[in-house]
Amino acid sequence: MDKKAIILLSGGLDSVTTLALAQQQGYQCYALSFDYGQRHDAELLAAARIAATYQVIDHKIIKLGLGSIGGSALTDSHIAVPDSLQAGIPVTYVPARNTLFLSFALGWAEVLGLTDIFIGVNAVDYSGYPDCRPEFIQAFQTLANLATKAGVEGQEFIIHTPLISLSKAEIIKLGIDLGVNYQDTVSCYSADEQGSACGICDACRLRKAGFNQAGITDPTNYQKN
Amino acid sequence: MDKKAIILLSGGLDSVTTLALAQQQGYQCYALSFDYGQRHDAELLAAARIAATYQVIDHKIIKLGLGSIGGSALTDSHIAVPDSLQAGIPVTYVPARNTLFLSFALGWAEVLGLTDIFIGVNAVDYSGYPDCRPEFIQAFQTLANLATKAGVEGQEFIIHTPLISLSKAEIIKLGIDLGVNYQDTVSCYSADEQGSACGICDACRLRKAGFNQAGITDPTNYQKN
Repeated sequence: MDKKAIILLSGGLDSVTTLALAQQQGYQCYALSFDYGQRHDAELLAAARIAATYQVIDHKIIKLGLGSIGGSALTDSHIAVPDSLQAGIPVTYVPARNTLFLSFALGWAEVLGLTDIFIGVNAVDYSGYPDCRPEFIQAFQTLANLATKAGVEGQEFIIHTPLISLSKAEIIKLGIDLGVNYQDTVSCYSADEQGSACGICDACRLRKAGFNQAGITDPTNYQKN
Repeated sequence: MDKKAIILLSGGLDSVTTLALAQQQGYQCYALSFDYGQRHDAELLAAARIAATYQVIDHKIIKLGLGSIGGSALTDSHIAVPDSLQAGIPVTYVPARNTLFLSFALGWAEVLGLTDIFIGVNAVDYSGYPDCRPEFIQAFQTLANLATKAGVEGQEFIIHTPLISLSKAEIIKLGIDLGVNYQDTVSCYSADEQGSACGICDACRLRKAGFNQAGITDPTNYQKN
């Protein structure tokens, strides 16, 4: 029987590694991205390129309008993206983001008749986002099986988080083994239209350190340095 | 201290009763509605009228684009709305709908700095929707407290479901006591532009029976009968 899965595809390093891994495990993949009022389109353009490269069955980009509720430096132009790691939960935290992303994935999964959802969350290089922790994922999986017609009828949703306990360096090594071209990905919170990275935001720092620790040349196109 | 809450406001009978009850309990209310590809706008127009009548602090209508994933008679014009009650979970079930609605409410709650969310789900006249059951609500509340910055920092989200164990007739009696004008509400799955109800879909049948059992004259404007 064909194995099919939905992959949450942000266009960043983690999500493309997750997609490559799901394909290697034999899943035919559907990719799901969100236009949630990010400040730039570079991420979504990267997601579209990656979806094409990996020949996913379908790639949907859902417009969410999170900007209308505000509350994050990533969706609200009045909050500055910081250029250094902050203590605690950062201002780049988007309220309920992964809850929303997984909820859409769940709805689409039901429509497609599949029960496997992959998300590239990571709790090691986790910079303080509560919705990247294993206990959050477990709670969502419980919810998914109560929330849905499929769950009530006895199917079991599984939220796969293959990267959750890996360091950024380990993710990069895994991706390189899987043949991922990381030049296609955008991690930066302040990337320009061409997808060039700022080199100084949290996401850039984690990515740089990951390549450094993995002993792999960083293919990222930086605006500075 | 001011009590504040978000009320999920569909524009139907249950949601306006929930709003009236929350206000009576002393909550200052924010109303949240969704444009999720319903076939008609009558529901959202009703929500806007109700929000104005009750002078909520703010009323947001979030565009969801559920139509792009399809799968329900309410969002997919290729699936007919049935004119009689069906066995099991009906085709009007929208995959992951309440999960999505509550996820948005959760995100907005965090931005507003409040922890009380009201939703008018009902498990008695429940026509087979899995995401109207108490165990679903409980699982969402658990998720909410794990998913958010506020939850991690020790605040506790509460999902209020004051109607969950009431019959439709009991809800109507409660609303009448609270001064609700049900003529303003739209329950029908196939309402026309003016909000007139078909009188034969599941939602109309439940509503009619409710007024009948409550011994209250049904103020609904029906297209037929």
